[in-house]
Parts: sequence; structure tokens; C-alpha cells
Amino acid sequence: MNNAAERLRKQMAFIAEADKMKAVFRRAYVSDLSRHENDAEHSWHLCLMAIILFEHANEPDLDILKILKMAIIHDIVEIDAGDTYIYDEAAKQNQYQRESKAADRLFGILPDDQSNDYRELWEEFEAGKSKEAVFAKALDRLQPMFLNYLAKGKAWRNHGVEEKDVRRINGVMAEGSEALWEYAQTLISESIENGWLPK
Amino acid sequence: MNNAAERLRKQMAFIAEADKMKAVFRRAYVSDLSRHENDAEHSWHLCLMAIILFEHANEPDLDILKILKMAIIHDIVEIDAGDTYIYDEAAKQNQYQRESKAADRLFGILPDDQSNDYRELWEEFEAGKSKEAVFAKALDRLQPMFLNYLAKGKAWRNHGVEEKDVRRINGVMAEGSEALWEYAQTLISESIENGWLPK
Repeated sequence: MNNAAERLRKQMAFIAEADKMKAVFRRAYVSDLSRHENDAEHSWHLCLMAIILFEHANEPDLDILKILKMAIIHDIVEIDAGDTYIYDEAAKQNQYQRESKAADRLFGILPDDQSNDYRELWEEFEAGKSKEAVFAKALDRLQPMFLNYLAKGKAWRNHGVEEKDVRRINGVMAEGSEALWEYAQTLISESIENGWLPK
Repeated sequence: MNNAAERLRKQMAFIAEADKMKAVFRRAYVSDLSRHENDAEHSWHLCLMAIILFEHANEPDLDILKILKMAIIHDIVEIDAGDTYIYDEAAKQNQYQRESKAADRLFGILPDDQSNDYRELWEEFEAGKSKEAVFAKALDRLQPMFLNYLAKGKAWRNHGVEEKDVRRINGVMAEGSEALWEYAQTLISESIENGWLPK
């Protein structure tokens, strides 16, 4: 096999392996409440939010392409490491270690240059320091919160989540977008009024 | 409600409505064969393929951001119009009419400027003439074909699809990427050899 064919073979092997994202289920429900959402769907929804809500970022000069790449690949590590519920403090203890090992294996399927690039991009997202990572993480908080709101708090109630937890976990959204955090707080208020989220 | 709040409300209404993509099921199977793939998952997988396979496009100067936006929104119309199987010639007759009406309603949920921009982007994808649309459409052929290959031809056999159909429908891939069509033909050959696709 020549180099070009071998390169494409590695890329397609990665694309095949990534298909397993469709079988990693999250705590949130899809909006018709029939089942839990999976990581592939979540990642697509995040991409949609990124292109539609981009204007609400605090920072004026964000690289939207980088944000989309982050959104596409940010949860791939969960194929090996599983979904860690954001309200599960115990599971979050060794989350980075588990996910870092997964990143080695999964991005390692790609040709070397792409393997390095996407491994680094994933690290940048995880670190949450660059302006693109900060905004991507804000969306990554808003998306499940919005689904939980659309689901009338079903996932929150399943896991005993209260207003103070939602505020503590999601307040960081303001670092990426004051406007989106302001909006998110109206969802919290409405959820409390409707009895979907305990005070 | 002020203008900024009203704008964000429309954007979030669109993001909520788009969630229904997770309930539009396609003919292809996810790779563990447990169930059919839905449009949200397909769109994410297409985004992943776009960023990983971009280098294989025939045209050197593609706007990858535009391709990603197309991949994210190209199937939203199927929320109203349903998935039209690419091998179903009868359903394809009035497909544009059904989907155009769906586009009016769905993109119409957005603020006017975004409504126009994304309606136009969807038309550009559908027309398949711009260099970005040609490459996006090539990926949109490769993705289900690759899943069908991974599924050992299950969807092809369910629908009586033969080699000549796969070649006729997917040959257009070469317009976007000779390299990917060359690769796709190796999948066809292997599928025939393995008895997954009737000659």
C-alpha cells in the first residue's frame, strides 16, 4: 500500500472508530423524552449552537472554525472513558487520567500530523483557557442545561440536582458569554417556578 | 422584551426545534448494527469527515467553515419532509418541493438575517454547484456508503440495492474528490467479494 492510501486508510479507521460515539449515552434526554441523548447527537447540537450563537461570545475575535473542531471532537474520549456526569464529583476525580489514556488511543489512530493536532486541540478544550475553549465550554454547559429545561427537569430530578448545583456548575458559562449566562438564568428561574428544579 | 432578548429567544427556539433531527431515522445502521442512524448523528459524522478528509478535495481552496455549516444544517429540512432514501426514485420526484417548504418553516424560526443566510446556504448545498457544495455532497455520499460497508451491507440487502445502483448513485463523489471515490470503489469491490453487495 502506498503512503497516500495508507494515510487515507488511517483516517477512515478513525472515522469508523468514532462511530462508537453514537453508543455513548448521556444523562440528558432528547427533547421528546423518549430516550437519553448520545455523544454524537450532543456534539452536532453543540456545532449548531456554535454557528447560531457565535455573536454572543464575550470575546470579539474568536476562531469559529477552531470552536467547531473542538465541538466535533471534544467527547470522542468518552468512547473509552465513558460519560462523566458533571454533577458526579467522585467520577470527576480521575476523569482527566481516564480521558487522557483514551485520547492517546483514539487520536493515535490518525496519521501522525492529525493525531498530534487533534490531541492538542482536545487538550486545549480540556484546559479551558484559550478564548475558543472558554466559549466552547460555555456552549457545552448551555446545551445539556437547555435540554434539561426542555425536558421539564427530568434529568435533574433523576439525579437529585438542585438550583444551587445548576448555578454552581453552569455559572462558568459567563466567562464565555455573559449574554448566554443571563439567558440561562431565566431558564433556571422558569424551571423553579414550574417545579422542574428544586430550590 | 428588548430586541437583543427577542433575537436570542428566536435563536434558542431554532436550536430547540432542530433537536427533532435526533428523531429522524435514516436507512443506514450505526456500526454496532443495533439500530438505524438518525440525522443528528449523521450530520456530526459528516462534520468529522469534513475536518479529517478535507485534504482529499479536488479543489485546492475550499472554505472549510462553509462546508461545516452545510454539514450541520443540510438535513434539518427532514424534520418536516422526512428522510428520502437515495435509492428511492419515486420519493425523489417531489423531494425538493417538500424540503423547500420545510426550509421556509424551519429557517424562518431564526432572526431574519440568519434565516436568510442559512436558507441560502441550504439552497447552495442542494444545488450542488459551488465547490464547497460539491465536496460536502461527496462526503454526504461516502458517509452512508461507508456505514453500509461497516454494516456488511445490511442496509443494501434490506432494500435490494445492487452494485450498479451503488456505482450510479455514488459515482458523483468523484466530482468532489477523486481520491475518495477511488477509495469508495475499493469498499464496493470488497463488499462484492464478501457477498455483502450483489453484483
